[in-house]
Amino acid sequence: MDKIISLCKRRGFVFPSSEIYGGIGGFWDFGPLGSLMKNNIKREWIKRFVQEREDVVLIESSIIMSPKVWEASGHLKRFTDPLVECKRCHSRFRADHLREGKLIGQGKAKEKNQCPVCGNKEWTKERMFNTMFKTFVGPVEDESHIAYLRPETAQGMFVNFRNVLETSRKRLPFGIAQIGKCFRNEITFGDYIFRSREFEIAEIEYFVKPNEDERMFDYWVREWKKFLIYLGLKEENLKEVEIAKEEMAHYSKRTVDIYYRFPFGWDEIAGVANRTDYDLKRHSQFSKRDLRYFEEKEKKKYFPYVIEPTLGIERLFLALLCEAYEEVKGGRTKTTQAKKEVEILLRLNKRISPIKVAVLPLVKNKREIVQKARKVFDLLRSHFVCQYDEKDSIGRRYRREDEIGTPFCLTIDFESLKQNDLTVRDRDTMKQERVKIDELVNYLTKKLED
Amino acid sequence: MDKIISLCKRRGFVFPSSEIYGGIGGFWDFGPLGSLMKNNIKREWIKRFVQEREDVVLIESSIIMSPKVWEASGHLKRFTDPLVECKRCHSRFRADHLREGKLIGQGKAKEKNQCPVCGNKEWTKERMFNTMFKTFVGPVEDESHIAYLRPETAQGMFVNFRNVLETSRKRLPFGIAQIGKCFRNEITFGDYIFRSREFEIAEIEYFVKPNEDERMFDYWVREWKKFLIYLGLKEENLKEVEIAKEEMAHYSKRTVDIYYRFPFGWDEIAGVANRTDYDLKRHSQFSKRDLRYFEEKEKKKYFPYVIEPTLGIERLFLALLCEAYEEVKGGRTKTTQAKKEVEILLRLNKRISPIKVAVLPLVKNKREIVQKARKVFDLLRSHFVCQYDEKDSIGRRYRREDEIGTPFCLTIDFESLKQNDLTVRDRDTMKQERVKIDELVNYLTKKLED
Repeated sequence: MDKIISLCKRRGFVFPSSEIYGGIGGFWDFGPLGSLMKNNIKREWIKRFVQEREDVVLIESSIIMSPKVWEASGHLKRFTDPLVECKRCHSRFRADHLREGKLIGQGKAKEKNQCPVCGNKEWTKERMFNTMFKTFVGPVEDESHIAYLRPETAQGMFVNFRNVLETSRKRLPFGIAQIGKCFRNEITFGDYIFRSREFEIAEIEYFVKPNEDERMFDYWVREWKKFLIYLGLKEENLKEVEIAKEEMAHYSKRTVDIYYRFPFGWDEIAGVANRTDYDLKRHSQFSKRDLRYFEEKEKKKYFPYVIEPTLGIERLFLALLCEAYEEVKGGRTKTTQAKKEVEILLRLNKRISPIKVAVLPLVKNKREIVQKARKVFDLLRSHFVCQYDEKDSIGRRYRREDEIGTPFCLTIDFESLKQNDLTVRDRDTMKQERVKIDELVNYLTKKLED
Repeated sequence: MDKIISLCKRRGFVFPSSEIYGGIGGFWDFGPLGSLMKNNIKREWIKRFVQEREDVVLIESSIIMSPKVWEASGHLKRFTDPLVECKRCHSRFRADHLREGKLIGQGKAKEKNQCPVCGNKEWTKERMFNTMFKTFVGPVEDESHIAYLRPETAQGMFVNFRNVLETSRKRLPFGIAQIGKCFRNEITFGDYIFRSREFEIAEIEYFVKPNEDERMFDYWVREWKKFLIYLGLKEENLKEVEIAKEEMAHYSKRTVDIYYRFPFGWDEIAGVANRTDYDLKRHSQFSKRDLRYFEEKEKKKYFPYVIEPTLGIERLFLALLCEAYEEVKGGRTKTTQAKKEVEILLRLNKRISPIKVAVLPLVKNKREIVQKARKVFDLLRSHFVCQYDEKDSIGRRYRREDEIGTPFCLTIDFESLKQNDLTVRDRDTMKQERVKIDELVNYLTKKLED
């Protein structure tokens, strides 16, 4: 894990937020490569679940919503964690984490119920702490102006259920999808970007007939796993975890989490919940609007059930990096010079790689080669995210690109000047193929869609 | 304007946030078409200013940052609006808006300094109100745990200046770009989605040599305008407004706003500011980190100047809709039947249109035609955002697509069954062209990139 964190920092995937001020716990920034990679994940998700499906539409609802939404959804009352405070050093932790021994090994915590900061074992009484971030809308800071940063995007879909139904003319079953920032004021955060206080979720609220919920639940678990595998996670590194009744969210009839085998252990990256008709019913009740669905065939009104597949973008981002990370001892080229080195190879899915194509003139002191390479770069960059690099030996440049998962390196050499072609090096096979420059855009387009 | 608002509601571009609870002032949701359109704007921006440029990299920094950032940036002290309260009805307004007569015509405000709610003219003394939204990080709600929702993305670039410099190996001049949500607790909001409390900004912090700031300032004003025109705004509906010294933000040496001629008057959609070396200097001072740039040639260290082109995504979204909106009296086809009707045509740039292609079987009661249309739809939807529609007459379906700006309608008719082709109707020219289905993907790809 430390190696991945170090790579992410060194190559510009992830930085601690506000780092020059010592950081701010639970917040992260995405650098030049990380932000591109995150966008790629989101784009693939939207392509697969919105563009390629007729039964799912996208929305984007606001992060700050009416506080009544959270009253109706039950979050105001129940979106809480048990909090205790160390009687000696006043550090605060989640009581359940202490009880379950989750903090053992951190700092001074050698056993259950021991404070990781000072080692003390005496704690204040548990109190429930609401983990929604609170703010005030308008210039008055009083009870009546409190609002919350959303802890999930789901409520945006529920309160827009009627709006979407009326404008999109969808019939059951259909889904409303959204990707967006969510905020949870976690008492304990950590494992790098895995558990942070600001994060992005991709979720679908999929509305079905009440008696079809169980079948559709299973369907979405399969679809969700297929997507994770499609993006590059190995099936053997995924497992389904059935959540026990007492541990499920208050709205759920059944929850299955999808766990990934991280270097720090199995943990959740996605999940599917059967939210039943809980949310639509509650919003009907609290808003006095009829949010039932009218079934034309049977001429009756009812509350649809909701299956909710959900996915943490940063968690998937991290899982994809862990899965793709490889160290090649002795170097990939096995030259004498490389023998002592360890080379990093990031076998990211081509769709996810932040840089698709690197354009490399073989040498930088030959004007015609550099000029030709620049021309190729200009030709390609309206089609793909490209990088031009002429610094250092060609071997070092290959290694730099391998390290960030660039699928194709193009080398312009002396031959290129005569033949108007170049070599395309494949990241994974290291095979080199000569391709005519005139055919390059088509060639790469096809390869990248493979 | 009312017509655009109504179209946006009726067809699913924009909904008021938390509408079933009576809304929440200054917050909006984007529906199925609006969210796609917004994504298209963002994608075009990233393509033009990040992908196609070698000198700009993207980042994504967190919305909640260390509060020290806002102390250093000056926002804590100076990001304020003058606030007054009506002595009779206790409504609160911006004092400068009252003074300038900006509220005249709203509610009961017939003249300057009159309360739009009750018509009273007596006000409390002005006080300065900080428009950053406040929250608390961690389980304790006291001064030392206050944090703010960012009112601009810029500070994320400044605090990551060193990180980006070290990982991306860029040299001056270079830029850091970001698109992201920002929050401003506006006392008065309105003009639909124009002035809201949660909104998205696209901005670049472009770092230059201190003596090159003025030249680069002019360059970015030009680039920014070119982009707006490229996306579809007419040049005559844009104007540059030089901001007076006393009205500029505290960090600015010069600011030019780009105004668009909205139906409600000229107003700002974008701008360019010369932030000088203010931010990097302040962060150096407050963080005790050296954020100077090392110029290798001259072997000297200095603070770069910063030119900041910035753009409100929702404002551009609204401007594009206003620009594209057209009413055709008597109908576009000028048939007898259509003569009394007013047809709406949304001449959106093809890149921005939420739906690219509509697939329409001529009739829905002929099985072979419907099957063929479905096949075409399946063929296209992995390439483009498509819509399949078989309901109502073909004329009505064309009108539905015109109304949301779909550039191409494909009609599958009896001829299609014999010739394996279909007609492609161009939204703007209404010309119909027969295209072979085998050539369709290439044909549309080219047309959409035109």
